[in-house]
Amino acid sequence: MSGAKQLAMPENTIEQVELLTSVNDAHGGVIVNIEQPMDSGVFAPLLKASISEWRNQEKKGVWLKLPIEHANLIESAVKEGFRYHHAEPNYLMLVYWIPETADTLPANASHRVGIGAFVMNSTREVLVVQEKNGRFKGTGVWKFPTGVVDEGEDICAAAIREVKEETGIETEFVEVLAFRQSHKSYFSKSDLFFVCMLQPRSFDIQKQNLEIEAAQWMSVEDYIAQPFVQKQELFSSVAKICLAKSNKDYVGFSPYCSTTSSGKRSFLYFNNQDLKHIGASDKQQ
Amino acid sequence: MSGAKQLAMPENTIEQVELLTSVNDAHGGVIVNIEQPMDSGVFAPLLKASISEWRNQEKKGVWLKLPIEHANLIESAVKEGFRYHHAEPNYLMLVYWIPETADTLPANASHRVGIGAFVMNSTREVLVVQEKNGRFKGTGVWKFPTGVVDEGEDICAAAIREVKEETGIETEFVEVLAFRQSHKSYFSKSDLFFVCMLQPRSFDIQKQNLEIEAAQWMSVEDYIAQPFVQKQELFSSVAKICLAKSNKDYVGFSPYCSTTSSGKRSFLYFNNQDLKHIGASDKQQ
Repeated sequence: MSGAKQLAMPENTIEQVELLTSVNDAHGGVIVNIEQPMDSGVFAPLLKASISEWRNQEKKGVWLKLPIEHANLIESAVKEGFRYHHAEPNYLMLVYWIPETADTLPANASHRVGIGAFVMNSTREVLVVQEKNGRFKGTGVWKFPTGVVDEGEDICAAAIREVKEETGIETEFVEVLAFRQSHKSYFSKSDLFFVCMLQPRSFDIQKQNLEIEAAQWMSVEDYIAQPFVQKQELFSSVAKICLAKSNKDYVGFSPYCSTTSSGKRSFLYFNNQDLKHIGASDKQQ
Repeated sequence: MSGAKQLAMPENTIEQVELLTSVNDAHGGVIVNIEQPMDSGVFAPLLKASISEWRNQEKKGVWLKLPIEHANLIESAVKEGFRYHHAEPNYLMLVYWIPETADTLPANASHRVGIGAFVMNSTREVLVVQEKNGRFKGTGVWKFPTGVVDEGEDICAAAIREVKEETGIETEFVEVLAFRQSHKSYFSKSDLFFVCMLQPRSFDIQKQNLEIEAAQWMSVEDYIAQPFVQKQELFSSVAKICLAKSNKDYVGFSPYCSTTSSGKRSFLYFNNQDLKHIGASDKQQ
């Protein structure tokens, strides 16, 4: 190892206690990111001394990010009073709140987001699939293509992607027609499901084999007549909305891409048709 | 490879290998919930033997839930090939995918959800606050009350709660006027922010002291005239939508409470006004 570190201490100086490397965050706290392997017997006293120092500095929250290869250090952090904040496949984030006052650390992500795609062709047929897995497996129920919106993915992009993946059909995003919020669908997490209308741009179905048993264009009346759609209030409400939309009797929320001063893009979804009346139509995409 | 499996066993003995207690999930996998303290030296061979047995049984995903008090077992699980799935303050969920095929385990929660509340009284004044912390601290900007939707909390309930907490004002939920999806707002997570309209049911402001510097009723024109609102495209778009709504020129999505056959409640948000035209108005709340 090169780069000899000079720790030669002159006699009579105050003993320097080694601390964990940390950076300050924007809320009066510190962030520690352990990147090098460390023995837990070395880590534990370092962490204890560091907390003591941060307490003297009146720091608030401590964020400790432990990559999965340093799982050996978790137990020491928990013994020191850390709790879990969130985890991703390859790391665990732990937190420790130093002040006596109530913890104001932000909550973990709380929702999963999904889409269902209403895709209708010019002869009033809707694009439907039968799934190989899940609750509809083997039921013969024809349903809209659905899927999960990935972290970092726009809802409108996810709808286009899922339709393409499951059926091979190219589409253009039109509107969010409705959304449903439900709870405890998945561990303790909540769920937001967006019903999206898309316009088909191709018509030959190439179904995906891994998840999809069958895919077809089906008359919207046949889709709605399915006992499952009739019986389940949520499905029948969504079917009514789609039918109204297909008759041009319904306006949903259209996406409008906006860029902040710092260059960050985001989509605002709103009733674009109504807003045209107040002269904002020139700003819509 | 032919079918018959031969397990060479000494005659007259059936070796009993102790395994972890597991329950089957609905997707061909197993769930292990460690509830009793265990030494990691005991746990590691048990886990190894259990995986081997699950592999023989052609199980797919293994979910291992470790309460924080059993943090001592994480390292063994990681060494055995587990990765993190998600964490909550008091537990870590690890997963292991047994088959050779691609992992189809569901993703972790991906979004945080927030609300902004547009509350206008009969003299066209909007309820606004100045915050003690965050990006608007000390800027003099008056903004709508905002807040985070808790896990398990309905968007409409969260909007009512936040307005009450920050200003003491009682409200009734009317509509979601628009929503914005943005990314990487918080670690790698995405963000969904719902702009909600609420009708005030009380008028005397009792501001909360911890987070709120000031709260008042302000003419909607003065709110919109703020340089910050004018300059930021997202804020000016939202202001236009709110203004259109206050002039009754805009329809958003209203919540409709639906209950599944299994008794699970959820809210569907949609353009209720348009749907009335197709005779569904009797079903709205």
